[in-house]
Amino acid sequence: MSGFVHAPVMQELMKQFGKLPGIGPKTAQRLAFFVLSLPEEEVGAFSEAMVKAKETMTLCPVCYSLTDVTPCQVCRDGTRDRQVICVVEETSDVFSVERAREYRGLYHVLHGSISPMENRQPEDLKIKELLSRLEGENGVTVREVILATNPDVEGETTALYLARILKPLGIKTTRIAHGIPVGSNLEHADAATLAQALEGRRDID
Amino acid sequence: MSGFVHAPVMQELMKQFGKLPGIGPKTAQRLAFFVLSLPEEEVGAFSEAMVKAKETMTLCPVCYSLTDVTPCQVCRDGTRDRQVICVVEETSDVFSVERAREYRGLYHVLHGSISPMENRQPEDLKIKELLSRLEGENGVTVREVILATNPDVEGETTALYLARILKPLGIKTTRIAHGIPVGSNLEHADAATLAQALEGRRDID
Repeated sequence: MSGFVHAPVMQELMKQFGKLPGIGPKTAQRLAFFVLSLPEEEVGAFSEAMVKAKETMTLCPVCYSLTDVTPCQVCRDGTRDRQVICVVEETSDVFSVERAREYRGLYHVLHGSISPMENRQPEDLKIKELLSRLEGENGVTVREVILATNPDVEGETTALYLARILKPLGIKTTRIAHGIPVGSNLEHADAATLAQALEGRRDID
Repeated sequence: MSGFVHAPVMQELMKQFGKLPGIGPKTAQRLAFFVLSLPEEEVGAFSEAMVKAKETMTLCPVCYSLTDVTPCQVCRDGTRDRQVICVVEETSDVFSVERAREYRGLYHVLHGSISPMENRQPEDLKIKELLSRLEGENGVTVREVILATNPDVEGETTALYLARILKPLGIKTTRIAHGIPVGSNLEHADAATLAQALEGRRDID
């Protein structure tokens, strides 16, 4: 009935959950009630984990990934190829690429992508940090920059923008391949992906 | 690569998010990184909202819904019909029923449903509290108990169990109707729902 509303403390908790990406009002309500069903110690642990992670994690001064050690575990690893830099949008993308167990170079995290729609300009990303890294890397010449931004409009725009800046510097600049995901099939592929897969076709032997 | 893992503080935060219903490991990682992207004050506010909600909300001593006032806003409302009790599984269900703006009686929250699979027995629910409420309600005779548990196996089992206990007490016991949701159509209804809709058909005039 009119006047029957959630308690202010619950409204606040639901508002907080509702800020999370992909969490609508109904899910926010479900999560808020779930928190109440947890023992007090567990709620405390959850609450503390949040604050502690935020306190502890900082940006790596070299690659700008979020890290608890400075420089981050990739940048401090002497066995990595320091002449290759893989540019990604977010720190989580570093974990995705690492999971592929294929790449042995360094990273650079942009913290976003260019999006005129959402008013995110090149200046809002760690692009000048990338450039000064390419110029100033004391003695080490970067051989290749791999643009691994997402294959969506913003990611492509960002890759294109970076390619235009990097090419004149004489640094080899590559873009990750688009195509049919491994284990998928043509029937499920959308037209744009299929077009890219055809365009990116390679000789087999 | 082997050895490339999330920072301990991030692992902990992802573990906490992973405890929430419907949140898998990938979403937990996304949410944890999202928290890092928030300003420190906002992380603090979120963290505090959790602890505060848990501290503030308690069970209403009458209907066992989670509330910040004792008794809860429904139980203290003198305009409600105290002779009708709607039995639901969770406090969130109270909000769902209230949203329908149709019901003017009281509630009783069981805090779960009978589930032999998950080892939830009748003793784990607020059933004896319901019975002592029906017996002990000083002077007020309860006219009807509406069983509004979920229309799934556990909810039906719980409704059946309660009906068998309540009937001998001479209290009118009803079950909410199953049927085609309003605004939906026959084509989308599953067979079980359609069967219930047919069985529950009513005269129209």
